[in-house]
Amino acid sequence: MARIVMKFGGTSMAGIERIRSVAARVKREVEAGNEVAVVVSAMAGETDRLVGFCREASPLYDPREYDVVVASGEQVTSGLLAIALQAIGVKARSWLGWQLPINTDQAFAKARIGGIETEALNVSLSAGEVAVIPGFQGVSEDGRITTLGRGGSDTSAVAVAAAMKADRCDIYTDVDGVYTTDPRIVPRARKLRQVTYEEMLELASVGAKVLQTRSVGLAMKEQVRVQVLSSLTGDDAPAADTLPGTMIVGEEEIEDVERQLITGIAHDKNEAKITLTGVPDKPGSVAAIFAPLSAANINVDMIIQNIAHRSSGSTSATDVTFTVPSSDLPRSIEALNQARAEIGFGELIHDTRVAKISVVGVGMRSHAGVASTMFETLGARGINILAISTSEIKVSVLIHEDETELAVRVLHTAYGLDAEAA
Amino acid sequence: MARIVMKFGGTSMAGIERIRSVAARVKREVEAGNEVAVVVSAMAGETDRLVGFCREASPLYDPREYDVVVASGEQVTSGLLAIALQAIGVKARSWLGWQLPINTDQAFAKARIGGIETEALNVSLSAGEVAVIPGFQGVSEDGRITTLGRGGSDTSAVAVAAAMKADRCDIYTDVDGVYTTDPRIVPRARKLRQVTYEEMLELASVGAKVLQTRSVGLAMKEQVRVQVLSSLTGDDAPAADTLPGTMIVGEEEIEDVERQLITGIAHDKNEAKITLTGVPDKPGSVAAIFAPLSAANINVDMIIQNIAHRSSGSTSATDVTFTVPSSDLPRSIEALNQARAEIGFGELIHDTRVAKISVVGVGMRSHAGVASTMFETLGARGINILAISTSEIKVSVLIHEDETELAVRVLHTAYGLDAEAA
Repeated sequence: MARIVMKFGGTSMAGIERIRSVAARVKREVEAGNEVAVVVSAMAGETDRLVGFCREASPLYDPREYDVVVASGEQVTSGLLAIALQAIGVKARSWLGWQLPINTDQAFAKARIGGIETEALNVSLSAGEVAVIPGFQGVSEDGRITTLGRGGSDTSAVAVAAAMKADRCDIYTDVDGVYTTDPRIVPRARKLRQVTYEEMLELASVGAKVLQTRSVGLAMKEQVRVQVLSSLTGDDAPAADTLPGTMIVGEEEIEDVERQLITGIAHDKNEAKITLTGVPDKPGSVAAIFAPLSAANINVDMIIQNIAHRSSGSTSATDVTFTVPSSDLPRSIEALNQARAEIGFGELIHDTRVAKISVVGVGMRSHAGVASTMFETLGARGINILAISTSEIKVSVLIHEDETELAVRVLHTAYGLDAEAA
Repeated sequence: MARIVMKFGGTSMAGIERIRSVAARVKREVEAGNEVAVVVSAMAGETDRLVGFCREASPLYDPREYDVVVASGEQVTSGLLAIALQAIGVKARSWLGWQLPINTDQAFAKARIGGIETEALNVSLSAGEVAVIPGFQGVSEDGRITTLGRGGSDTSAVAVAAAMKADRCDIYTDVDGVYTTDPRIVPRARKLRQVTYEEMLELASVGAKVLQTRSVGLAMKEQVRVQVLSSLTGDDAPAADTLPGTMIVGEEEIEDVERQLITGIAHDKNEAKITLTGVPDKPGSVAAIFAPLSAANINVDMIIQNIAHRSSGSTSATDVTFTVPSSDLPRSIEALNQARAEIGFGELIHDTRVAKISVVGVGMRSHAGVASTMFETLGARGINILAISTSEIKVSVLIHEDETELAVRVLHTAYGLDAEAA
């Protein structure tokens, strides 16, 4: 007997017919002798509808009331899945965020889970009941509904899996696993059988879009074995432990045969490039740029500071280029313009027509080798590199957006990731 | 300063534009110096949508999970109204059923309110905050969401008004008050300025459809002054205590000028007539009929037992006719057929093409006089009376459904209820 968490996204919950399919799949896990908790999203489109109501009611809505409104979407699907399970003879009950409870901090609309009480849950699971838990929601210390921010249901699932010491957390999604790159760009992309938390973090945060980044971070911290599976296969699919999804695990669990230098290529078009010209080249001027952005909670990613190239009066000046998420561009411009006097820059130039391409792999022993292959491959195709950044397990470059697909394709081939032709 | 409860139905909450109108109206009450709690319904159509999901998931849905699903409609509108109030500078917060809490019994999907804790609510109201409370929902002793059954938001409003010792409970609805009869049938129907709880109970339960019956019974028990008002008048309407709605009050509050023999004429097409033929005319046979109906929680209204008219063997037999709500007819037939051996009836004849017409008035001193006017008036128009029942403040007759409008019109005139021609 294993304890497992199954998580289903909005597409899987979109309508009663699909909820019935989910119930059938849950039933197979129960019949395989497992103790099962199911974490569900709202029906596809429902959260957008509810968020739209809040925005229409007031663009500056109270996040506490927003949470009351938007948490209802998962409440509905939890009750419906419990009903659908009972209808096929599976004991089940819903547990809302405030009922378990799933305790969070008071950061309404983007709360973080503090802890999940499992006493009642364990009694229920031991009695053979499936626990149906709405994702995305919790309750604050003062007893108000909180939500975890968009995509938070993945995080809920991992947190529930950690709290109930589940053997596995199965995330059912629109895709059937994690691929070496986006299969819409590279038809010969391969599905990975295993990937480490660290790689998944890089792949997710740079655009693989399979799992919410926070959930992967939590899984890594709590050592929850996460499996990504397709929710689209037929009702007669076998129990999940025989399905060929992707397991996200610690590096020590990766089997030798799976080890490669590079695990995957990710791309992300949601970055914007900002260049400040004529920044005084003196101590503290870079801090003056990033302090206001940090205060506005804007994540700066790639940073390039050109060498001082001209002098104006007594101080030399330089250009500073960096990237921020495109959605934060307007706020970034506002924050920088407000700090213009302190920073002392000339022009602010911004460009959203850029893409970040990342080569990811825990097997990467030497950045130099990986990076040189990358630069050579891109250079041979005439793709201009606007910025570079690296972390322990990846090398990223910023390029012009129009060249995204070409860059991904040639890199996928260059690192030997293409599947054998069928 | 007064304490008031304002209750808005689904039509008033159908979309953000209307929720904004509600917020504006609440603001006027706050600016008039009142402490205000608002009880809201779900957006029009939303509860039906949610109920539809539950039925589709399983016709035999678990009422505990049904409550989780359907309670979400009012949760959404509570949050949205709080946001809309804040947007126009009114301090407000939502209080869900489990947050106040509104304690109910465990009769899921048709729960009854046991008590409402007001400690936190009073602190909030004293701080000048408008409390926005979802109608229709509460929480059971074991911490699960309950709902009060369809139309339960009126009951929630009255219960909240009683708990917070409100000076008035204003129910905003699609109509602008309680009329002497249905104005769609009798254009010269008059709006009543005052009506007693008892009269309202009869008018509501027999079809006036302004307020849920249970809410009126609760208002009577708790002596809550209820005002029925139109939600459709413009945003520039004055505060509610100057609006010409209908006040529902104790008999002692009725002003002399308002006293009349008959207050109104109600009609109800949602009754079905059942006749059992050949019922043995012996002690216990009527009990044998009504025991299974009572066990199935079906309300029997009018009952006529004909005089025994024929004998078969050693016992004489009789026909028993009674009415049940049309919606309970299938279950009634099933319950009676199952008990057929015990009851020993011949045929079961049923007819849904009937209507109950009721003449209501606390001023009714003698039923005989009221009833004879009724029978003469209907008889003069050739309307056949199928059954008769009376209570302290009403006389009801069952007639053929096709004659409903004619009967209401002629009775309205006969009892002098027609308004002066404009």
